[in-house]
Parts: sequence; structure tokens; C-alpha cells
Amino acid sequence: MVWGRFEAWDTLKTVKFGRICIVGASGAVGQEFINLIQERAWQCDEIVLFGSGRSAGKRINVTGYGELIIQNISQSKLTGFETALFSAGASVSRQFIPEFTKYGTLCVDNSSAFRMDASVPLIVPEINGKQLSGEERTIANPNCSAIILLMALSGLMPIGNLQKVIVSTYQSSSGAGAEAMNEMLSQTQEVLNGQPAEPKIFAHQSAFNVFSHDSAIEENGFNGEENKIVAESRKILGDAELQIIPTCVRVPVLRAHTESIAATYNQPIPPLDQVRDMIRSAPGVKLQDDQANNHFPMPIDASGGDDVLVGRLRIDPSDPNTLLLMASGDQLRKGAALNAMQIAELMQTLR
Amino acid sequence: MVWGRFEAWDTLKTVKFGRICIVGASGAVGQEFINLIQERAWQCDEIVLFGSGRSAGKRINVTGYGELIIQNISQSKLTGFETALFSAGASVSRQFIPEFTKYGTLCVDNSSAFRMDASVPLIVPEINGKQLSGEERTIANPNCSAIILLMALSGLMPIGNLQKVIVSTYQSSSGAGAEAMNEMLSQTQEVLNGQPAEPKIFAHQSAFNVFSHDSAIEENGFNGEENKIVAESRKILGDAELQIIPTCVRVPVLRAHTESIAATYNQPIPPLDQVRDMIRSAPGVKLQDDQANNHFPMPIDASGGDDVLVGRLRIDPSDPNTLLLMASGDQLRKGAALNAMQIAELMQTLR
Repeated sequence: MVWGRFEAWDTLKTVKFGRICIVGASGAVGQEFINLIQERAWQCDEIVLFGSGRSAGKRINVTGYGELIIQNISQSKLTGFETALFSAGASVSRQFIPEFTKYGTLCVDNSSAFRMDASVPLIVPEINGKQLSGEERTIANPNCSAIILLMALSGLMPIGNLQKVIVSTYQSSSGAGAEAMNEMLSQTQEVLNGQPAEPKIFAHQSAFNVFSHDSAIEENGFNGEENKIVAESRKILGDAELQIIPTCVRVPVLRAHTESIAATYNQPIPPLDQVRDMIRSAPGVKLQDDQANNHFPMPIDASGGDDVLVGRLRIDPSDPNTLLLMASGDQLRKGAALNAMQIAELMQTLR
Repeated sequence: MVWGRFEAWDTLKTVKFGRICIVGASGAVGQEFINLIQERAWQCDEIVLFGSGRSAGKRINVTGYGELIIQNISQSKLTGFETALFSAGASVSRQFIPEFTKYGTLCVDNSSAFRMDASVPLIVPEINGKQLSGEERTIANPNCSAIILLMALSGLMPIGNLQKVIVSTYQSSSGAGAEAMNEMLSQTQEVLNGQPAEPKIFAHQSAFNVFSHDSAIEENGFNGEENKIVAESRKILGDAELQIIPTCVRVPVLRAHTESIAATYNQPIPPLDQVRDMIRSAPGVKLQDDQANNHFPMPIDASGGDDVLVGRLRIDPSDPNTLLLMASGDQLRKGAALNAMQIAELMQTLR
């Protein structure tokens, strides 16, 4: 199991890039790429925004870069980019990533298109960033729920070998995109007004409701989201034997996914004060375990932040090798845009 | 482990009562008692509504009984009642139940006051109703999350002995009472209006958020709600060795609690079609396991209904003895008022 922070990236101070582009600039993750480029003060020679025909022509102001106009990707010249950040769905990635990489562009892909491709690394920098050599041209960004789960467990490596994880998720509407988020908001107002809530994006009412994740049930009875968590976690940790048993559920939250986790190790869990110290010293996570004030990881605290919040720590009274915990992380940031950009930053240090 | 429906109650057709009273008539559960008395066509000689000083004088129309006025319990004569339904908090129960039982009144108590008292039965009729002899005068109604969990598992007895349950809950605001429900609604409107949401009942914002259950963390690191589920489930099933590992979480839902459950038996789980048949034939539960339409137990479906919905069935790929499922039940009905009234109905058949 590869597990450990890539040190060079840790000390990265100034983020200099050549010509970069964002593919899918008008989506929920695309917007977050643009926010984070400004927050993280990326210094790029040029930023080009690509979108679908529908969003082409839309203008977006980016501090330091002026007003940028979204271009229709299919009609554009795809040469001369150092880095391309993709978040436009699997079919767009499959169509255009081979075009970009032909010209040597590094593509970091937020879709599921290449995640399970054996020749494409699937990376969470804090966890398996050491796998990267700098020569890669396509790198996949994992599923948001998988990233948040693995980040929550990332500091706990000293406990021993992780063997089994039972996880139930509390996933926000935004994981299904900007339109799903807007549907949940408008339905909420309808319900408050005593009107019927008509679902369009989701199969079920999302306002004031909880429902099994909207991805289709697959042959093994688990849904697509659950099967992604299992397969991607095994690939990221390089452990095909790891047992992950997920139940993925949507809740009426705008941003940030929360997870209730039971993690079983091959060793007894040490005293919880030691576990808390492990979490405190891990990068990209923040301990939120305030028992006196009943303050544990919550999506409203995680939203808009970079860290995955971890807490509600307990040892399973029936099994000394099992740790119970909760985690909450912004799935548009660490679960998507931030992680992809951290991959790009890490690659800059390796060039 | 006592597990099985009380048959006489099953065939109960007409529900005749003498003089009855509801203690805590203006609360969320009290309102549900009144709704259910009408729905279930209870034929009572008289219904008396008791409330706190604050609600005394309030008028409530009850079909068949005219307009009833809530009386201040502390100033009232407590004699001559056949049955008293209590839902006014543990301190009111502790103060008044001994007064009522002195006069031979059957008290069914929805509070936690007597649940763990060894001399008081803790009853879910479908599960351990057979314990009752008809002589009892105080009977406790279990915690709502415990009832929904045990009802979800109630049909699965033929699988074998239940050994361990890992459960994560998605509990609605209404579990904390009518004021909490209203706070969640008004906060939701504030957030939609772009205003700050100020929590008063709960410690944290309940609108568009998820938070660890509001009961205090106890010495073992679990909160009060979680410890109730464990202790009460063991008492109801008569199995002090049963391991239940709960994580209780609030979600922005108005009614009905949902639970994600991993239940481990001493035997392999039979093929899921057999498990579905077990659930179909169990009273008080309804199979909701439509994989093609991604339709599983949801609080909006469970709200206002009597049955606990059960589905999302899967066998743990790493353990053939563990069944994964989801359940959703209206915690004001089966989780509180309905279960208490079913206890009273069952006692009528034993008199």
C-alpha cells in the first residue's frame, strides 16, 4: 500500500504554469477551478476556457486575467497547452484527452473515463502522489466520495493495515452538478410554499428527503457510485484485497459530502488521544472532535474549505480493531477541483 | 430472544376503550395520538387531554368527540382513567405515572423515564408483545430509532441469531419535537433568502446541514441516543450480548427516520429473494426494494404511514453472514404514537 505525502509538493510556494485550459468551464466543478486558480494565485501564461456549444460565448472575469470568453471546444485549436483541467463528463474526456496528449499536454481528468485504465494513474496527492514520475500525460482524479473517505483515513496509517471499511454516505445534491443543486433549492421553496415538488434531474424529490444514490444499480446490487468507491480505493491504495462496503445516500445539503465510517485494521486501535494526534499531523485533514460542544464534522463547516474534517471518534465496543468516525469534505473542492489542481501542482514540481 | 407477533392483537377489529387521557396533548407526538385515535376509530367512553400550563385552555376538535379543551394536569383529578397515553417528557412521566397507576390506570409511556426499569416492560408489539400478561400498569414505549431498527430486522428472524448491527441514522428534525421542526423550516427560508440561520433549539444549523445527534456525548463516547438504541434493543430482544454499533445523525427532513444497517447473523444470509419474502410476510413492515427504478426506503414515502419501509438489500461481499439494508419509518407514528397505541390495543385484548 503506497501511503504518504509527496514532500516536494508540500513545500511548493509559487505555482507557475504555461498556457493552461479548463474543459467544462461553466459546470459546478469548472467554476471551482476558476475560484481556486485565483485563491491559489496560479501564475499562468494564459488561461483558455472551453465549454459546450450551449455555454460558448459566456464571459467570466478572472482576477489577473481579465474577462475570459468560453470557447466551443470542438471548433478550437487544441495545441500549445501545458496543462488541461477536464471536468465535462466522460464522453468529452474520451474524445478530447487523446487529442491534447498528442501534443504533450498534461490532462488531469475529473471524469470517470480513464480512472480504471491500468495505464492511467489515479491520484490523491497526499496518499499516492509518490507514484507520479512527471512523465505522465493523463492523470485521473478519483470519485469525490472515494477521495473524502481515503483522506479521512489517510492519517491513520500508523494504526496498521486497513482491512475492511463499512461506510454510509450523506451526499449533497451538488455532487450531481449545478442543475441538481438548483433543483433542490427550487423544490425546497415549493415545499415551503405548500406546492408539490416535481423532480426533473433526480428521480425523487430532493428537498426535505433522503434517497439512495441516483446512480443505477449494477449487477452486484451495489449502485455505480458504490462500485466506484470500492474499485477506485483499491487502485489508489494498491490493495486489491481491501474490503469496502459502501451505502451511498443523497441528503438535502448543497455542498460537501459527509460519511459515517467503521474502519477495521489488523491491529487494535490505539487510545483515541493517539488517534487524534495522527489526524492532527496529517496534511489535508482537520480534526473536528469536540465532544463537550457536540461539534463534529458537518457539511456547513466543510463547505468552501480545503480540508476534510474528521472526528466523532469511537472504538467499536465489540471489536478493538475497528474505529468509528465521521468525515465531511467539500466534494467540489477536495472531492474534485482542488484535488485535480493539486495533481497539476505536484506535476509542475516534477517537470 | 422473544420475537414474534402477538396473534390476538393481529385480529383485533374494533378498539373499545373506557375513559382515556393523553398527557402531553399539544406536542408533536400528542397531536399524532389524536390523529391516530380518529384514523383507527378508537371507541372511547371519554377522551381527556392534559397539557402543561402553557397549552392549557387550547381547544382541539376530535371527530366523534367534539371540541376538547386541554387541561392543566397538575390541577386535575387523575382518577377514573382506564388508559393514559404519556408523551410529555421524562420528568412529567416520573411525577404523574405513579399517581395514575395507584388508581389502576394503564400508563403507556413514550418518554425514557421507565424504559430501563427492570419491572417495566419495553414493548414493540410485533416483536415482544407476547411478554405482556394484561396485568401490567406501566409499559414503556421504546426510543424511535430503536423501534425503526428492530422493526426493519423483525421479519428476518428466520435467517438465524442476530449477532451484530452497525447502523448509521438519517434522523429528521421532528424527532426533537415540534419546535425543532419549525426551527428547521424557518432556517430553511432564511437560507433561501440569503439570511444567516440562527440555531436556537439545536446547537447547529439544521437547514441544509447534517450533524451528529443533539443528545450529549456520554462517558463511553457514544451519545445518549446511541446508548438508548443499544440498551433498549437488548432489553426488547432479551439478548444482553447483542452488539449494536450506532452512529446517530440528524438530516434536514421533517418526518421519518432513515437508517443504513449492516446486520450480521450466525448463519449465511439466504438468497435475497428469500429475504424479500421474509419481509413481505412480516407485519408492520413493507418491502421497498425496486432496483430498476432506484426506489428504496425514503422518508417522504414513510411519512404519515404506519409501516416501516425496508429495502436496498445486499449481502456483504466480504462476509456471507452480513446483510446490508436501508429502512425508513415515521418516528412520530411507529416510532412513537402508533407503537404506544398498539400497546394499548394489545392490552385491551388481554383484559
